[in-house]
Amino acid sequence: MKKMIIASTSTVYGSEYLEYLMPTLENFFKDVACILFIPYARPGGITYDAYTEIAAAAFKKMGKEVKGIHKFENCKSAVHEAQAIFVGGGNTFLLVKTLYEKQLISVIKKEVEKGTLYLGTSAGSNICGPTMKTTNDMPIVYPPSFKTLGLINFNINPHYLDPDPKSKHKGETRETRIKEFHQFNNSPVLGLREGSWLEVKAKEILLKGDLSARLFRKKEIPEEIPAGIRVDQKL
Amino acid sequence: MKKMIIASTSTVYGSEYLEYLMPTLENFFKDVACILFIPYARPGGITYDAYTEIAAAAFKKMGKEVKGIHKFENCKSAVHEAQAIFVGGGNTFLLVKTLYEKQLISVIKKEVEKGTLYLGTSAGSNICGPTMKTTNDMPIVYPPSFKTLGLINFNINPHYLDPDPKSKHKGETRETRIKEFHQFNNSPVLGLREGSWLEVKAKEILLKGDLSARLFRKKEIPEEIPAGIRVDQKL
Repeated sequence: MKKMIIASTSTVYGSEYLEYLMPTLENFFKDVACILFIPYARPGGITYDAYTEIAAAAFKKMGKEVKGIHKFENCKSAVHEAQAIFVGGGNTFLLVKTLYEKQLISVIKKEVEKGTLYLGTSAGSNICGPTMKTTNDMPIVYPPSFKTLGLINFNINPHYLDPDPKSKHKGETRETRIKEFHQFNNSPVLGLREGSWLEVKAKEILLKGDLSARLFRKKEIPEEIPAGIRVDQKL
Repeated sequence: MKKMIIASTSTVYGSEYLEYLMPTLENFFKDVACILFIPYARPGGITYDAYTEIAAAAFKKMGKEVKGIHKFENCKSAVHEAQAIFVGGGNTFLLVKTLYEKQLISVIKKEVEKGTLYLGTSAGSNICGPTMKTTNDMPIVYPPSFKTLGLINFNINPHYLDPDPKSKHKGETRETRIKEFHQFNNSPVLGLREGSWLEVKAKEILLKGDLSARLFRKKEIPEEIPAGIRVDQKL
């Protein structure tokens, strides 16, 4: 059975890395001793080692070991053998390009469908949808495709931001960008605000955290989905 | 001789479309009766016709005609025969994909190098650099390449935004995103704030408008470039 945590962000304002998710993660990973970390998104250009250390320090607090996938000789086998996978945030283009280069897209998808636990934050959440076409990141590298894991049947916009009515900036709002996405794509888009996450159990997808999320369907007025609601029943 | 206006935005807060640029454009286009408009970036999903009408209305005020490239049977000939080209803003991925589909990238580049006047705003400015890898737009469609016109030898980040020290948002700042770009790319990046534009005359590239621009070079501390300065001498 598919079991996933898909979080808008690793970190909310004023708290430590993963801190707001700790009670959830403690329960989610309760039967797991070691988590395979995928650091390919490299936020701010951090090294794989340094990024893995950040993840490892957070999980050490709950007695879990974290191993970076880059330390394994065979990264496909590492995914096959993992009980749990954590894909961290950073640049989605870089993450997706690297996953394709290492031929891991279909491997991760299959293993998570079979029951390997999956935690994604930010870019690691973005790739759970059918495409990465609703990322906020800069296209700093060219991936061979924008298709991603397709483990959920809608797109995620992580770090979703409401338009600021006081802003004097004329760049597109997030809502305008998602409207442009729907000119060329049919998939619904869930704008996940920082502090929100999804809990996926097989077909059930629950919105968690204190905030509502904003659901954009093609040619429809966006809808606020309250926390605690099953998103899969809204699609 | 290459002559270009490369503007951060078509519109600044509290004014009409292209209004802040009007005196500049009046001088720039003084010997031109008709401007070829390229509406492919389709901001907010607007149609080619509707977008062209917006541009035409703005240029009508200075007695210039605007023709949309989509009205020509042969878009390559339209570019060859144009005295002036205006590439409007919108979604950079869509713009670049469409320019490749219509095989216009090299045609526009050659004509502008030969002296056809070029005006770009936002996405139309982004494509003047060697790549579109510093766009802020969502990857709503998949272009065959991120390579763009290369009419200037550095990247543009239009609508450049300074980090907001009061923000509680944990998504990457523009500066962080550009730093990530430089992990994988060598080209300098000019963060053009709304209200700034570049005037290109052959090799001379002048920063115009009231604001400074922020120049990011790989592995160096970003530098504020005051208005009125020749950017080409800073590279």
